[in-house]
Amino acid sequence: MPSESEASRPFLTWQRVIDWAQEHYRCRTFSKDEKIPVRPGLLYLVQRGSVRLVSISQVSATASSTASRFTRRRESNPNVWTPEEAFLGFVGAGQPFEIVAQSPFTIQSYAHVDKTSVIWMYWHDLDNWPHFRREVMDAFRYQHQRKLLWLSTLGQRRTIDRLLGFITLLVEEHGEPCDNGYCLPWTLTHAQIGSAIGSTRVTVTRLMGKLRSRGLIRTQGDNLICLPASDAPKTE
Amino acid sequence: MPSESEASRPFLTWQRVIDWAQEHYRCRTFSKDEKIPVRPGLLYLVQRGSVRLVSISQVSATASSTASRFTRRRESNPNVWTPEEAFLGFVGAGQPFEIVAQSPFTIQSYAHVDKTSVIWMYWHDLDNWPHFRREVMDAFRYQHQRKLLWLSTLGQRRTIDRLLGFITLLVEEHGEPCDNGYCLPWTLTHAQIGSAIGSTRVTVTRLMGKLRSRGLIRTQGDNLICLPASDAPKTE
Repeated sequence: MPSESEASRPFLTWQRVIDWAQEHYRCRTFSKDEKIPVRPGLLYLVQRGSVRLVSISQVSATASSTASRFTRRRESNPNVWTPEEAFLGFVGAGQPFEIVAQSPFTIQSYAHVDKTSVIWMYWHDLDNWPHFRREVMDAFRYQHQRKLLWLSTLGQRRTIDRLLGFITLLVEEHGEPCDNGYCLPWTLTHAQIGSAIGSTRVTVTRLMGKLRSRGLIRTQGDNLICLPASDAPKTE
Repeated sequence: MPSESEASRPFLTWQRVIDWAQEHYRCRTFSKDEKIPVRPGLLYLVQRGSVRLVSISQVSATASSTASRFTRRRESNPNVWTPEEAFLGFVGAGQPFEIVAQSPFTIQSYAHVDKTSVIWMYWHDLDNWPHFRREVMDAFRYQHQRKLLWLSTLGQRRTIDRLLGFITLLVEEHGEPCDNGYCLPWTLTHAQIGSAIGSTRVTVTRLMGKLRSRGLIRTQGDNLICLPASDAPKTE
């Protein structure tokens, strides 16, 4: 029975893997923003929905003072100190993920949309499907290349350039065709965008307005971010 | 004949691969800062020395004006406009790299130190060594995990936190034991560091001074960056 995410799945052996996961109780469905427990040494596959990877920083240049170890979240309760959290990207349906390296950051995963289903397995379970193992490895190679591009834009000096580069890469990876362009299928808050590009919610809101007024991005429906089909900026 | 980089090589089949590369003229040595030509679809292995990955940005939020497409390099000739370049990391001896994804950034590789030797092959050449293929894939998985940590620190809001996180990750990956800590075996200019963390040479120089005075980093010999062995900051 084909699922709605079938079109985007890169794996030929996918249905057999899903069947195996069902038989072995290695599949679980999460609701929006629910934390997905992950352990090093295990391989995870997104069957449906989308997974959001985030990291929590454990280091700070001013570690001697407890208060300054944490970044004040200005947009919420000013008396609450929270560790800084960074958005690291989505893992879409049909894609694998794993979380191994940790120090000095803790990487966590959340269901980004409701009814996100995740399959898990040990690496040696892949011995049953050598061809599938190769597909998983190729998917990680691809993800690695994409992260090099993310690093490229995060090295840019001006925040507005990082913001546009970040949005461009995200829509390239996950965008779906819409009127006159490509649209991110899920919402992302300005605070989440800020956490990815080393900026704040307030600055992101301001710069998103600038990009919109220059015709470099659009928003659609439920605040979904779109890139116009043509690269040429519209003059207004 | 074992080379000086033998200790750091992760691959069991390494010597056979080196022999094969010599026989098939698939090995070349580069001098410091020489560009290493790379093509998508090929796999590269660093036999000796260190490779520096950088990216050149092709996008800017102000693409309509030619002048503002490029970032002014303030520290050199103010009349020269150059595209923004970002440092993406080192690939050390025994490690593989490949460059596939490009748009909207161009990723390039340079010999970071003199006498850097690089082997290249097609992916199907790995069919000869299935075990080696798995080792290469595991190396890419590791690199991918490391880049997630890089993204974690680049999401931090304060430049000094990004700087310390970046140095910590770099020394974790490539550091060698020295007096009371670990030391990066190669120099990296403050401009290169700035290009990785979205900052400028001037700011990096100022913040490196702050980190040094807090005892969070040290420099040694030929301006090599060191992290103290103990995580506890020294009071001065």
